[in-house]
Amino acid sequence: MNRSQASNGALQSVLDRLAREEPRALERLFRLLAIPSVSTDPAYHQSCLDAAECCAGLLRDTGFEARVVPTRGKPMVVGHWRGAPPAKPRRRVLFYGHYDVQPPEPFEEWIAPPFDPRFVDDPHHGTVIVARGASDDKGQMMTFIEAARAWRDEHGTLPLDVSVLIEGEEESGSPSLGPFLAAHGAELKSDLALVCDTAQWDADTPAITAFLRGLAFSEITVSGPSRDLHSGVYGGPALNPLRVLADILAALHDGEGRVAIPGFYDDIRAPSPAELAGWRTLGFDDASFLGSVGLSKPAGEKGFGVLEQLWSRPTAEINGIVGGYGGPGTKTVIPAQATAKLSFRLVPGQDPRKILSCFHRFVADLLPADAKVSYAHEAGSQAVGFDTGAPPFLAAARALEAEWGKAPAIVGCGASIPIVESFRSRLGMDSLLIGFALDDDRIHAPNEKYNLRSFTKGARSWARILAELGAIDDVVRT
Amino acid sequence: MNRSQASNGALQSVLDRLAREEPRALERLFRLLAIPSVSTDPAYHQSCLDAAECCAGLLRDTGFEARVVPTRGKPMVVGHWRGAPPAKPRRRVLFYGHYDVQPPEPFEEWIAPPFDPRFVDDPHHGTVIVARGASDDKGQMMTFIEAARAWRDEHGTLPLDVSVLIEGEEESGSPSLGPFLAAHGAELKSDLALVCDTAQWDADTPAITAFLRGLAFSEITVSGPSRDLHSGVYGGPALNPLRVLADILAALHDGEGRVAIPGFYDDIRAPSPAELAGWRTLGFDDASFLGSVGLSKPAGEKGFGVLEQLWSRPTAEINGIVGGYGGPGTKTVIPAQATAKLSFRLVPGQDPRKILSCFHRFVADLLPADAKVSYAHEAGSQAVGFDTGAPPFLAAARALEAEWGKAPAIVGCGASIPIVESFRSRLGMDSLLIGFALDDDRIHAPNEKYNLRSFTKGARSWARILAELGAIDDVVRT
Repeated sequence: MNRSQASNGALQSVLDRLAREEPRALERLFRLLAIPSVSTDPAYHQSCLDAAECCAGLLRDTGFEARVVPTRGKPMVVGHWRGAPPAKPRRRVLFYGHYDVQPPEPFEEWIAPPFDPRFVDDPHHGTVIVARGASDDKGQMMTFIEAARAWRDEHGTLPLDVSVLIEGEEESGSPSLGPFLAAHGAELKSDLALVCDTAQWDADTPAITAFLRGLAFSEITVSGPSRDLHSGVYGGPALNPLRVLADILAALHDGEGRVAIPGFYDDIRAPSPAELAGWRTLGFDDASFLGSVGLSKPAGEKGFGVLEQLWSRPTAEINGIVGGYGGPGTKTVIPAQATAKLSFRLVPGQDPRKILSCFHRFVADLLPADAKVSYAHEAGSQAVGFDTGAPPFLAAARALEAEWGKAPAIVGCGASIPIVESFRSRLGMDSLLIGFALDDDRIHAPNEKYNLRSFTKGARSWARILAELGAIDDVVRT
Repeated sequence: MNRSQASNGALQSVLDRLAREEPRALERLFRLLAIPSVSTDPAYHQSCLDAAECCAGLLRDTGFEARVVPTRGKPMVVGHWRGAPPAKPRRRVLFYGHYDVQPPEPFEEWIAPPFDPRFVDDPHHGTVIVARGASDDKGQMMTFIEAARAWRDEHGTLPLDVSVLIEGEEESGSPSLGPFLAAHGAELKSDLALVCDTAQWDADTPAITAFLRGLAFSEITVSGPSRDLHSGVYGGPALNPLRVLADILAALHDGEGRVAIPGFYDDIRAPSPAELAGWRTLGFDDASFLGSVGLSKPAGEKGFGVLEQLWSRPTAEINGIVGGYGGPGTKTVIPAQATAKLSFRLVPGQDPRKILSCFHRFVADLLPADAKVSYAHEAGSQAVGFDTGAPPFLAAARALEAEWGKAPAIVGCGASIPIVESFRSRLGMDSLLIGFALDDDRIHAPNEKYNLRSFTKGARSWARILAELGAIDDVVRT
């Protein structure tokens, strides 16, 4: 019996255990989903603390040394698997997840309370788990923790050394992450990060994400009159901040759908011809992607396909506007100020700080007399791309192919995962981005769901990836 | 002793009684101010009913036959003074007021709870009454009712026949008013309406308002994707309704500050050279008007002065925008829809229905593929102007000059009072627009106030106006 056959036997008993123990695993997931850990809204602060403690408890219960580490924002959860000292140095991976979730609003569109998780029969996907965070990221995170638990319960050890970092501010720009990595970098630095916050290519095709857009946030507030004004008594001569704001927002794009901020495209690096060719082999269906959300025509930059727009073109999006009267009925008011929340998706070459500076100059040039502007919640992360020929990347691809019966798609992702950029820039550590979400999981929207099958096969996939990564013999320590 | 001397003696004892009884009058006003009768928000519906009953009680207590009449919205309060049958036909006036108020939001900017009225020492105005509705319109309305009460208490009768109509939807477009006037027109039609919902020229100069802008409301909702989308997963190719809305709102005006909706200015009648000349004699101070609300430059149509913009030029104003995430922090969402509340101020010649049609066509021409639009809360009223040489107008001017020691300013008003247009179009009845509010009363804004002096001299002014109107001998009944 060679090592690979031994591994296979060891793996199979882990997979069997996952199947037997799944009811308990789902109970653990539901307990976590019931905690309304919305990081962006201070009203949920205590729930974020509760979610952190819950995660630490789950890790301890799995044999990790785990602790909750306070930050200036939401606490971090850190866990380490420390087996017996191995005969030779073992590869160490750092698994990353986040226990915080997006705000659940609008409540009235949920078919069940967002923090009362339940099984729902879905016509396309069979049983699905409906709850805020079911997919992003509590469900995804638990696929890994359950895989580790099954390895430990079955064999008393894991195939390689594993540390875990679970943060609580991923949905609100991760303000505490930089300082935390600076302070705890030596403890956390590993050979590779495993990040489970991405989607499959489709319900039957796993994916490894090798490219991620970056992100820059800005909340802009335009002020005019010193107080709210009656639109009859003052309307005409009085400056209306909502009108100034609309003028700024409308000027963000030109008639071709390009962002009109001077300097915005200056430094971008386009994907290589080979990358573009790879994307074309994926058979992406523009019409069905748009049709699934009620749209029919790509609304982005003219001259670029949908996949190219998503994976390689930057954007400027308005995420929210608040100003004047928003209640039922009418109110004839000219508000003293108006606010918009913006986010810019970035591609390789763009520096978030420079993009925000360009935006500020652009706004300054548009401001009329008596209008003042201020900015809040500004934060950002650069876009990233990975080496798809590295041994851990190839090992993970083998594991996924064994579970799913087909090779994973090597894809980009339009969304940002700031942690990935931080791991690279602060710890010099690459990430393997593997997740089992589906595009129709309704993350960030009402009725977020995670397929039961995603949970089951996600945990099995991680059990296999742990085995494959443990079997790589090329450990290089610097 | 001639009739005029008798009237003067009768009037003086009424004025003396108003002075003696003022503490009780203020108690009655505070009772009414404590009722949060916000008509535009269904959450306050019961309070609107309470305010109607309170008004009816105040009228009965003053000797009126009064009743609360249900409508499909907020009820109307109707009262009639019926003295002994006079020797000859008496002039009848219909006093109009409204018991509903604007929403109090934002609460956090109030120095005291908006429905807990209190006296506050103001550096400019001495004692002021701070509460939502203190000026608009509960305080103003009570100046008239207290004047009538003093006449009745002092002389057992009023100088002329008086009916009262108090509505509860003035701040939300008066949807029930038209049907109500159609059903009760015969009961309400009088020789003249008295409307107390306007301001003085300044703290020492009373005013009669002879010109009012009209108003057209629209709430526009732009829809795009079938659900809220993640701005990373969909951003670029997905249509963002907030961006479509911003484009529409920014297109409402051209670079000269003119409304860019085709047809908007087609039918307007400019003020006469004599009217414009009269306005110029008022010595209006543009810089101080704007400076009092933190502004320095007129933001309206180029080529028109501030007073001309306010009294004779139409506007398109954004009163509120709601779309996407509006809570604390950030949320990377592309919302399924976005809404703006708009109001158009109209001048003579403009038809609200035609203006809204022009707006709808304008929007339709701007809509990109996949964007849908819907409208709500559409309502409107035409602008109005009155004959400043009619005997009741001149009688009221004499009464005001007697109280204030100077002739009233004959002014326009940028705000709309739909009832005035309805009285003219439905009942063929002109209105005398006299009010004692001041431009700095912060109506529709936090910390609305009414000067105690406005209340005191307002009631005295109405006592005098009732006397002067009663003394006119030219009663013409049709």
